[in-house]
Amino acid sequence: MSDAPLDAGDDAVPWLFDEATTVHAAGDGRWDVELRDEFTIVNGHPNGGYLLAVLGRAAVAAVGEPDRHVVGATATYVSPPTTGPAQVHTELLRRGRTASQVRAALVQDDRVTVDVVMTVARLTDDPPAWGAVPPIELPDEATCRADRRTGRSAIPGLDEPPLTKVLRVSFDPAVLAFLSGEPSGRGELRAWLSLADGRPWDPLALLFAVDALPPATFEVAMTGWVPTLSLTAYIRAVPAPGPLTVRFRANVITGGRVDETADVWDSTGRLVAQSTQLAAIRMP
Amino acid sequence: MSDAPLDAGDDAVPWLFDEATTVHAAGDGRWDVELRDEFTIVNGHPNGGYLLAVLGRAAVAAVGEPDRHVVGATATYVSPPTTGPAQVHTELLRRGRTASQVRAALVQDDRVTVDVVMTVARLTDDPPAWGAVPPIELPDEATCRADRRTGRSAIPGLDEPPLTKVLRVSFDPAVLAFLSGEPSGRGELRAWLSLADGRPWDPLALLFAVDALPPATFEVAMTGWVPTLSLTAYIRAVPAPGPLTVRFRANVITGGRVDETADVWDSTGRLVAQSTQLAAIRMP
Repeated sequence: MSDAPLDAGDDAVPWLFDEATTVHAAGDGRWDVELRDEFTIVNGHPNGGYLLAVLGRAAVAAVGEPDRHVVGATATYVSPPTTGPAQVHTELLRRGRTASQVRAALVQDDRVTVDVVMTVARLTDDPPAWGAVPPIELPDEATCRADRRTGRSAIPGLDEPPLTKVLRVSFDPAVLAFLSGEPSGRGELRAWLSLADGRPWDPLALLFAVDALPPATFEVAMTGWVPTLSLTAYIRAVPAPGPLTVRFRANVITGGRVDETADVWDSTGRLVAQSTQLAAIRMP
Repeated sequence: MSDAPLDAGDDAVPWLFDEATTVHAAGDGRWDVELRDEFTIVNGHPNGGYLLAVLGRAAVAAVGEPDRHVVGATATYVSPPTTGPAQVHTELLRRGRTASQVRAALVQDDRVTVDVVMTVARLTDDPPAWGAVPPIELPDEATCRADRRTGRSAIPGLDEPPLTKVLRVSFDPAVLAFLSGEPSGRGELRAWLSLADGRPWDPLALLFAVDALPPATFEVAMTGWVPTLSLTAYIRAVPAPGPLTVRFRANVITGGRVDETADVWDSTGRLVAQSTQLAAIRMP
């Protein structure tokens, strides 16, 4: 990851995230998209949260009410898409007064690669009516950032995946044992998250944030990649300005699969997004 | 709920759950089903977990490998179906060596009412490779069962919804404050679960178990029904014989929506199923 200061932004230049998630109406519920190299991790495959954001933008466009956001998404990763042109096919399952539901499929070479159903509704700024998920405690962002291991990739032999130039992940130094090849066994990652060009977080970008960290199982065992079978994300509130904090936890590894849970807080400590995923894992 | 002893079963009579989830091949990935009155709660609408089990049975049939089970399901409840005839439309998204993915839609009167994507794979009996979700501690089943409030419905004016004859739910007396109209504010329900006719739990029936309790928000505030928008279930292991225990928790209520998490253990204390759902709620 670059150590350059976050770019304050230039009105003339669109933020990379907005450019990379642009959808162009192609008629009949279809949307042309261009999956960008910057959002890949390994082998040129785009990050799953980035794909969710692209599909989410198409889903909101399909509903056609710009003051609404994706508040829930369930995604099935059928096969890994490649970067380059693709199409999103949307189908409005239900238009409701308070919540609409849209199916969005990412299609490449006539094959569905990601199949998502999104719930699109209003997000309010009201404080929670009940309940809380207490924010994690992390060393401050500068301290996490100063750990030189933060910039290293979790993938052996790949020191700087393209995504690290887009997303500034500053890990809690306490969760980086896996980078030395000796996972702590705790199965938890914690980090600060900012978009590297300084773009503020918003509800759409939270879809990217919920799947932005390496597998939490890297702090359990050194394995190969841990491909997501199914991911569920809930967006709970419009995030306040400033960096996010995220906790990504593995719960149980059994039968070659693991469930992992992410919680995302904004800079005020408010829970703004949650996700859970089922992934395939081959234990050593 | 009936206080009759659990039926030991009669080989000549199929278990109700198996009868009520039967799917008949209608060709071209379509399956005829009959949604049964016994599995309804309010207004004649079938229970969401029951629908998940019906769709899961069709998904496994569509994959055509009888030794495989639904291990992950993401369901979107588009509109409430009614009891009676319906059709399940299945579409194989991916046939994989270790995991296949199937879309299954419940269709009534040419309308999709529930849209699900299922991951179908092998469940092993191996102990977990890592991690655990410690089982809840509950008074024993007989003690929970003896609390006469256990048989009462959480829905005002409806003392015995049909489902209570199918499913034996024995609540922890500590979580039944809501039945007196004074929720504890803790947002958690805990109970023993058995099928009333004595049918053993298996992976398919766990899809029913993950959504078998009233909304956990009933222990937060007296509200109307809390309709599920989206439900995600993971089946983690083949359950051991005996009753299940289940914990159903509300986490955060905000912007008119709540996330609720269920954990299900078998009689040995092993985590066998998990679910998370996003539901709509109107706070008083």
